[in-house]
Amino acid sequence: MNLEFFFKPRSVAVIGASREPRKFGHVIFKNFVESEFQGKTFPVNPKADKILGFKAYTSISEIQSELDLAVIAVPAPIVPSVIDECVSKGVKAAIIISGGFKEVGERGEKLEEEIRKKIDGSGMRVIGPNCIGIYDPTDHVDTLFLPRYRLRRPRGGPIAFISQSGAFGSAILDWAASQDIGISKFISIGNKIDVDEVDLLNYLSDDPLTKCIVIYVESISRGREFLEASSKITKSKPLIVLKGGVTQEGARAAMSHTGSLAGSAKIYEGAFKQSGVIQARTVDELFDYARALAYQPIPKGQKDIAIITNGGGFGVISSDQASKLGLKLAHFSPETTTKLKEKLPDYAIPNNPLDLVGDADVERYRQALDLVSSDPNVGIILVIVLLQTSYIESDVVDAITESQVTYGKPTIVCTIGGDFTQILVKMLEENRIPSYTTPERAVNAINALLQYSKALEDIEKRNM
Amino acid sequence: MNLEFFFKPRSVAVIGASREPRKFGHVIFKNFVESEFQGKTFPVNPKADKILGFKAYTSISEIQSELDLAVIAVPAPIVPSVIDECVSKGVKAAIIISGGFKEVGERGEKLEEEIRKKIDGSGMRVIGPNCIGIYDPTDHVDTLFLPRYRLRRPRGGPIAFISQSGAFGSAILDWAASQDIGISKFISIGNKIDVDEVDLLNYLSDDPLTKCIVIYVESISRGREFLEASSKITKSKPLIVLKGGVTQEGARAAMSHTGSLAGSAKIYEGAFKQSGVIQARTVDELFDYARALAYQPIPKGQKDIAIITNGGGFGVISSDQASKLGLKLAHFSPETTTKLKEKLPDYAIPNNPLDLVGDADVERYRQALDLVSSDPNVGIILVIVLLQTSYIESDVVDAITESQVTYGKPTIVCTIGGDFTQILVKMLEENRIPSYTTPERAVNAINALLQYSKALEDIEKRNM
Repeated sequence: MNLEFFFKPRSVAVIGASREPRKFGHVIFKNFVESEFQGKTFPVNPKADKILGFKAYTSISEIQSELDLAVIAVPAPIVPSVIDECVSKGVKAAIIISGGFKEVGERGEKLEEEIRKKIDGSGMRVIGPNCIGIYDPTDHVDTLFLPRYRLRRPRGGPIAFISQSGAFGSAILDWAASQDIGISKFISIGNKIDVDEVDLLNYLSDDPLTKCIVIYVESISRGREFLEASSKITKSKPLIVLKGGVTQEGARAAMSHTGSLAGSAKIYEGAFKQSGVIQARTVDELFDYARALAYQPIPKGQKDIAIITNGGGFGVISSDQASKLGLKLAHFSPETTTKLKEKLPDYAIPNNPLDLVGDADVERYRQALDLVSSDPNVGIILVIVLLQTSYIESDVVDAITESQVTYGKPTIVCTIGGDFTQILVKMLEENRIPSYTTPERAVNAINALLQYSKALEDIEKRNM
Repeated sequence: MNLEFFFKPRSVAVIGASREPRKFGHVIFKNFVESEFQGKTFPVNPKADKILGFKAYTSISEIQSELDLAVIAVPAPIVPSVIDECVSKGVKAAIIISGGFKEVGERGEKLEEEIRKKIDGSGMRVIGPNCIGIYDPTDHVDTLFLPRYRLRRPRGGPIAFISQSGAFGSAILDWAASQDIGISKFISIGNKIDVDEVDLLNYLSDDPLTKCIVIYVESISRGREFLEASSKITKSKPLIVLKGGVTQEGARAAMSHTGSLAGSAKIYEGAFKQSGVIQARTVDELFDYARALAYQPIPKGQKDIAIITNGGGFGVISSDQASKLGLKLAHFSPETTTKLKEKLPDYAIPNNPLDLVGDADVERYRQALDLVSSDPNVGIILVIVLLQTSYIESDVVDAITESQVTYGKPTIVCTIGGDFTQILVKMLEENRIPSYTTPERAVNAINALLQYSKALEDIEKRNM
């Protein structure tokens, strides 16, 4: 069934829109009114005449226009009657923001059952309850009820992000905004009374803005359908999943969080692998992997890694990490070695890792990048560039980007530092060159590229 | 032998001080002149009359005053003759910044041998060559030749940091400054012609400003002495080591970086454990662990963990990580459970993790912290606080700090986000409450506290 009305509604009613600036309903209504959202907007609040200058309605039945989307932010006990109204009005899609359902025990579970019966067969699709809804920077659907000075909205970009947990989602979105990471769509699915990760996977598989999908989930209720959808989507888009509640303690915590039973770690692991899903083991890995997979080409054919650095120590640690993961460092061809000897100062030994030494400038990086990228023995490039030396100017970003574009080889950067580094990291991010603060995280991201490459090859083999 | 002259010199000569603002010798001399360094400063440069207004000397033999410290930044081939002059002048300590020694091969190795002979038995101690020397924010010794707009200097604090690699050290210092992490002393040891990590461990063991020591090292040449020094120091101060070159690929890279042979991973691992050293497996872990160990009390007696959160998902992931590491979550006492039920809203279930739910305010955190901290079943507290909700104001920092001070239990924070979060993280850092961006990193830091606690108990047992 079509989820389009969630993301491209021509009209929206916010039920529970409030005049109180701190109330969720107020913030949500304001998001629609003050953004570039182009559809009609209707506040519903029986106690108000006007909200932010818009006429307020007592109930949605009073609204004459067709309604594509209803955002519901009223106390849990009132939600069933609101759902009744939505169904009889013919609303296409509803997001129930309200909490107080399955996650608080039996009483809430009953309410949820009641709602489920009302929407069954109604044709109306529902996201939530107990969620923060949708953030779509392209069509300006933003039901995040947290104020912008607390939760900065990330810019548009190629990564879709689904989170079962609202707080998890909002913390990561705020962080993503601070890192200039772009999001195609964010969806918080909460208690998943109707729309779940499977529906969203199917929807996002056709979304041209989404290049890579990231999911935080505590339970997967429709296991078989999830694997089918994953197997289908991973043929064209990488899918990264962090599964919460993989241990007994974690599962117990998940039970009281989203009221969901979490399955065994082993089962998920095997199933994910089988359907081409990249499993993140930590929160850091989720977006570390997503940025590599969304921004860079997937390695094909030659996959050996070249490491270029101006700091020997980071070269050593990268080699260690590659070795721990069983990844192979490239042997430069004799031609490359000869040319490197010619071009580089004699104290820069043409090994891999290629240590350009502390006095390397951008020109030396350019030469090294050119020679190493054109070597057929090199498939992937890790550029470590420590920016504390004043030899390196900001055009090192151009050098790296140009070499990536010219030679088309997956390129990953590692750099760490203060303000100056932060600026260059954002320039790289803008150019879709993913950058990592430590050699281990950079090499792990390369490993994710290789994992996905392997998954694609396995799919190809099966189809032959 | 005394290393005091490196850190508290009454007089310093910078040999190779230049008038050129980008030259290393210039930056180093300027660091002494423009900081609050209180000793005498002498630039040595045969081609200049004055540098930054100070009379320049042709050689140190012309300087009448006694010289405690010489910082040498001249081309490698000239270094042996400069060392001769230093020895005959009776200089107490020298730092050779210059590169071009063992790390570039045979030619450099010979130069290094030459220098070694000259200093043997001279009584002069030497740090380097091929290093960036010392940064001491208390006595204002700063031989970092990288300009401050590129490498911001961290403030004073309880963590001493030794790095064999200069670039590694400078990148981490710049990052530490951006995070408001305080450093007691930083020493880059480079090729370790004389002073090595063993000498520095012995020195730092008596340094009252140093509460915790962090080392990045690619080779440990005096293994037995290192273990002796470590065993001694870890009785009173935690020691965290990241060993580069633990794999074959990494060791090969280390060979051409600092010209040092790296030993087998297994041998180091066993030896570290035996001498109470906490081994960091990644660059992130180095300071993640150091901040927990330097700021918080070491767990004694009751060591079960309580998790307090306003985001269920982060609670779930923390539980997973604790479980993966074999750490135990506390069972709250019946009294605590009863009181939590009384004080908290009914939708916040008094389990551990204790989910205060998304609408928790600072007062709810205060009550939870009070009840949980006073529970004898709780030894360590992990406070997850996601700041995207406007219920939480910045005084949550006071609530956490006060509870830590009142109850004295090790307290770790997990929070992630943009600008607002960053400000609160710095407030926490100022109060010496370590904060981490992900549940996994926070729980790993708790694990480091527990590892050190275990090491101390083992020492106690051996002494009984």
